[in-house]
Amino acid sequence: MIERVETVNLGIIGTGRIGRLHARNLKYQISGAKVLGVSDILEKSAHEVASQLEIPVVEKDYRALLENEEIDAVVICSSTDTHAQIISEAAQSGKHIFCEKPIALELDKIYQALAAVEKAGVKLQVGFNRRFDPSFKKAKDLVRKGTIGTPHLVRITSRDPEPPPIGYVKVSGGIFLDMTIHDFDMARYLLDQEVVELMAVGSCLVDPTIGEAGDIDTAIVTLKYEEGAWGTIDNSRKAVYGYDQRIEVFGSEGCVMVGNPRQTEVTVKGAEDIKTDKPLFFFVERYKEAYLAEMEEFINCILENRKPSVGGRDGKIAVEMGYAAKESLSKGSFVKLQIN
Amino acid sequence: MIERVETVNLGIIGTGRIGRLHARNLKYQISGAKVLGVSDILEKSAHEVASQLEIPVVEKDYRALLENEEIDAVVICSSTDTHAQIISEAAQSGKHIFCEKPIALELDKIYQALAAVEKAGVKLQVGFNRRFDPSFKKAKDLVRKGTIGTPHLVRITSRDPEPPPIGYVKVSGGIFLDMTIHDFDMARYLLDQEVVELMAVGSCLVDPTIGEAGDIDTAIVTLKYEEGAWGTIDNSRKAVYGYDQRIEVFGSEGCVMVGNPRQTEVTVKGAEDIKTDKPLFFFVERYKEAYLAEMEEFINCILENRKPSVGGRDGKIAVEMGYAAKESLSKGSFVKLQIN
Amino acid sequence: MIERVETVNLGIIGTGRIGRLHARNLKYQISGAKVLGVSDILEKSAHEVASQLEIPVVEKDYRALLENEEIDAVVICSSTDTHAQIISEAAQSGKHIFCEKPIALELDKIYQALAAVEKAGVKLQVGFNRRFDPSFKKAKDLVRKGTIGTPHLVRITSRDPEPPPIGYVKVSGGIFLDMTIHDFDMARYLLDQEVVELMAVGSCLVDPTIGEAGDIDTAIVTLKYEEGAWGTIDNSRKAVYGYDQRIEVFGSEGCVMVGNPRQTEVTVKGAEDIKTDKPLFFFVERYKEAYLAEMEEFINCILENRKPSVGGRDGKIAVEMGYAAKESLSKGSFVKLQIN
Amino acid sequence: MIERVETVNLGIIGTGRIGRLHARNLKYQISGAKVLGVSDILEKSAHEVASQLEIPVVEKDYRALLENEEIDAVVICSSTDTHAQIISEAAQSGKHIFCEKPIALELDKIYQALAAVEKAGVKLQVGFNRRFDPSFKKAKDLVRKGTIGTPHLVRITSRDPEPPPIGYVKVSGGIFLDMTIHDFDMARYLLDQEVVELMAVGSCLVDPTIGEAGDIDTAIVTLKYEEGAWGTIDNSRKAVYGYDQRIEVFGSEGCVMVGNPRQTEVTVKGAEDIKTDKPLFFFVERYKEAYLAEMEEFINCILENRKPSVGGRDGKIAVEMGYAAKESLSKGSFVKLQIN
Repeated sequence: MIERVETVNLGIIGTGRIGRLHARNLKYQISGAKVLGVSDILEKSAHEVASQLEIPVVEKDYRALLENEEIDAVVICSSTDTHAQIISEAAQSGKHIFCEKPIALELDKIYQALAAVEKAGVKLQVGFNRRFDPSFKKAKDLVRKGTIGTPHLVRITSRDPEPPPIGYVKVSGGIFLDMTIHDFDMARYLLDQEVVELMAVGSCLVDPTIGEAGDIDTAIVTLKYEEGAWGTIDNSRKAVYGYDQRIEVFGSEGCVMVGNPRQTEVTVKGAEDIKTDKPLFFFVERYKEAYLAEMEEFINCILENRKPSVGGRDGKIAVEMGYAAKESLSKGSFVKLQIN
Repeated sequence: MIERVETVNLGIIGTGRIGRLHARNLKYQISGAKVLGVSDILEKSAHEVASQLEIPVVEKDYRALLENEEIDAVVICSSTDTHAQIISEAAQSGKHIFCEKPIALELDKIYQALAAVEKAGVKLQVGFNRRFDPSFKKAKDLVRKGTIGTPHLVRITSRDPEPPPIGYVKVSGGIFLDMTIHDFDMARYLLDQEVVELMAVGSCLVDPTIGEAGDIDTAIVTLKYEEGAWGTIDNSRKAVYGYDQRIEVFGSEGCVMVGNPRQTEVTVKGAEDIKTDKPLFFFVERYKEAYLAEMEEFINCILENRKPSVGGRDGKIAVEMGYAAKESLSKGSFVKLQIN
Repeated sequence: MIERVETVNLGIIGTGRIGRLHARNLKYQISGAKVLGVSDILEKSAHEVASQLEIPVVEKDYRALLENEEIDAVVICSSTDTHAQIISEAAQSGKHIFCEKPIALELDKIYQALAAVEKAGVKLQVGFNRRFDPSFKKAKDLVRKGTIGTPHLVRITSRDPEPPPIGYVKVSGGIFLDMTIHDFDMARYLLDQEVVELMAVGSCLVDPTIGEAGDIDTAIVTLKYEEGAWGTIDNSRKAVYGYDQRIEVFGSEGCVMVGNPRQTEVTVKGAEDIKTDKPLFFFVERYKEAYLAEMEEFINCILENRKPSVGGRDGKIAVEMGYAAKESLSKGSFVKLQIN
Repeated sequence: MIERVETVNLGIIGTGRIGRLHARNLKYQISGAKVLGVSDILEKSAHEVASQLEIPVVEKDYRALLENEEIDAVVICSSTDTHAQIISEAAQSGKHIFCEKPIALELDKIYQALAAVEKAGVKLQVGFNRRFDPSFKKAKDLVRKGTIGTPHLVRITSRDPEPPPIGYVKVSGGIFLDMTIHDFDMARYLLDQEVVELMAVGSCLVDPTIGEAGDIDTAIVTLKYEEGAWGTIDNSRKAVYGYDQRIEVFGSEGCVMVGNPRQTEVTVKGAEDIKTDKPLFFFVERYKEAYLAEMEEFINCILENRKPSVGGRDGKIAVEMGYAAKESLSKGSFVKLQIN
């Protein structure tokens, strides 16, 4: 690790699972960063994290972190409905911002938050962690280098090992804004191109309570890219064999694919068949390195004064694609996207 | 090989590449079959095959084979535009029929041919050879046995190593009737279910002369099955790495996948990367065993007096799906299929 | 297939499993060859094959085939103890010879047979079929081309799915002359180098009746090559997961490996693990193409008047290595080989 | 991570690459451990580490750490020639001990150190990190559970990406004590059985300067286990494709194998071949999780007052096997091991 002279002082807003993961990474594995404070409306949770990681400042209200002049940047890990408001206030306080996806479930709120960021001139990075997975990143770099020629087809398979609790499903904004949103971002990332039109189909095949909550759990989305390539995403809320995250970009000169890392490299050859291990269970395991790398990118962008590679516009477009998918699903036809 | 007492005497109509392949398989590898005659409008071709394989009867006109009372069954490998007419005549002559796909490019002709078969009570098998590939067959058997639970998603990747000559493209009926037709049949075969609705997109990305001929070379088709599962097919006329034929059926209890057999089992580990061989080049190599197995099935059906597992109705529906895909492509929306 | 003008007329001596396999290949898949006659001391067996394959001449005594002036070449598939004698007589009759391995279990007999072949100037090819496996052949070609630099280590894994009947074990000459003999030849083939010293260890771990018959069923042989590389062979008479035939050549610039082809390309992902198919069951399945290719080589050598790539000297050295392994096993030390 | 009430206070002796790796793991990723002090004869190195990791005590002489009453345990990462002496002194000071392999290059010194540990009743864990690799551990657990029946054959491939500096080679004790020592331990670990006899061959094929230093760089070791199984290890100091660490245990009911994890899960299919990534480069990358897990085991053994699963006797036997291999190499025959 290269040691840097300067240090970014951080406040972490929200100390649930993902907030703790970022806090731990920033504390132990990223040089140039110092976690000065944490806040959580559940004060007990904030105190727990602070005590484990020896973080000096603990607050119930995130505004106290925003007012703390020693803090340079915040990491927003609170519930989705608070993201946009906190982004706006953090920008007004001159803090750089890392925000978990999605920025908001309402497009108006997103536009306002991005305007505030724009006006304040602070940096905003959105938590599309998969862009930082070493395999996906290498695939994208190969596409960019022209290894597979002109892209013609993109295939994204994205299946969770199990559905979230039904209470979460109800406030999630639906599968397209909660789950497919990552795949929408991946689709844009892989080709460095916008999707200009999409068509979504799907239904509730996994768990009827998801259907009763007005959502679906199985979906296929067809994408048209601005330069003529076609893409397809398939989603399921439940793959019994674990987290299935594969991509494929097919072009005029070849095809690049990313498969699932397995839990171990063990193979057992028996009288009946040959057995290997299942994929890593879920996002915490699969994207362990990606979570670290995205936070390193954020800290480096601040230290080197450059724009994060995945910013507010990316966060906004992914949500717009989610809404387009919802519209397509209800209409049964393609929906055009207004990209700007 | 089990030797049988009875023998099916066959006439092969059309001695191009596929006719010769069937003739050779029937001659050398299938017991219970005897190739009595061949016909081809190019008499020289018919004579060549007859001399190589020691086939006694050689005709220019297929009707001479139909009139030959020693012949029990015919294998129709002539050009597509002649299939339906020959089927009708062969049925009227009381011959059992194996016919290469598609039965015809016009639905009316198909209906007439099937009516003739129905009336004559002869057996008709359509050359959907992929159903007889040992890997696809095993995958289908596992689905049928319930190994993966209720199917939710089907993914078919089907890419040719190179486009056919443009002259062929012009009379092929278009990608959906010429190439995707195999995938439509595979989609039905894998789940033993009908597709009730489909949506096709695509464009000409590989070779502009295909576009000038009014066809496309890259396509994605989304399928809705009668019991609620969703499917997707992706096609390209040109995969530089060879014939890419993979399938995946994902269900409530797991996922079954079929990958591409490689040319050899060699792996080379070098200073730059790990290299393995490309897939088998094209259909003759990849489906070598399948071509043999489908013909064994045809002969066995005659000897054992049972209905071929892939018959006229299957041939008809695949063409209907091709027309639905054409309609969907031009309309930009889903098209319902009338299955009966 | 290239059609040739001239034809090699063949007699097949011995119509057991392997004799029938060669007869069928020669009859149906190899142009330029014609099976004129078969012989077997079990006349019924010879008649059976002749009738199935429409072979005109059937004899009880192989000498009748040797005296048949229309026959150009013989394929010796009789029991091992008869090989050397038949080779000598066939050579004296001026017939070209394909002989199954081993030439004999006694070195004296081998030397005499090879002297007879030498004197008569006929061609002799020994049935080391694995040299003609497309994967092993490609591996060897890569080694020869220098793809992996200078070879340092060779690893051969060779395990049968099940031991032969104990009656066969008793007359087999022991594991080194019956089973490892193929690996000895493979070891020489892969590097185009002689083995100058070897050391064998092993014991009876699979089946005590093999031990009671004075043989072992599990072995490791360490090889020293003339140019300094080292090799290791591991054998077992019983791998419950099927025929395990893998090789690896490691050198200064990389490593080439050959794995086992699987029965199908199906993968099943379930809640417990990921399952794939076992290797092809045994030599008839695994080396199907190799059996055909070795016979094509034999016919081509006769038609083109060139020396078979695997000849009498190869057959002799493999047996000498088998005896060296036996000696090493009993001595517990390395044994030098006298190669000439 | 489960938080524990009690804490083990540690001193780290030697702050080279491996000392720093352990220090960082203990500081950031292992609860229940606190790094109180570090020492290094290069004081600057010790200070550097202490300042980065906020370690309060920094010493030049390890004896100062041994005299520090707050320290419960030491992690010995100094040069090999100092291990045995430090173990003895640490034991006398009542400290628990984690020591990098090998304990010493001289058997006398090992015996004395182990006697001191025995007398003091402290815990000693030896740094055979590979036992803690999740894949090898799972393989061993499957063997222990009987999944593959009675073991018959063990194959260990262990090849480094590049030789160490020649200066290191000269003091390393030779390939068997420096490199193969890990494989000797792995061989015992996999079967939970002792090796009773071994035979080593090898030569200098990679780099002549290694030969000039009196060492070899390519080796094969054949092992005989106490219950009759056979094993083989192959080593090379240079695999251009990276760190190659594979194992295979073959038994009466199947075979368990461990392959190399790749750098990414990317596959590129091109016009020439299919490419995947090379293995992780070297031990720091490959055994990252194993280094962490072995240290967790050490801390847990102290906290739970149990004996480390890999202790002094294991360290001793691996060195004894190294000497046996040296003897075998020079004698050209098998050498018996006296296990106690």
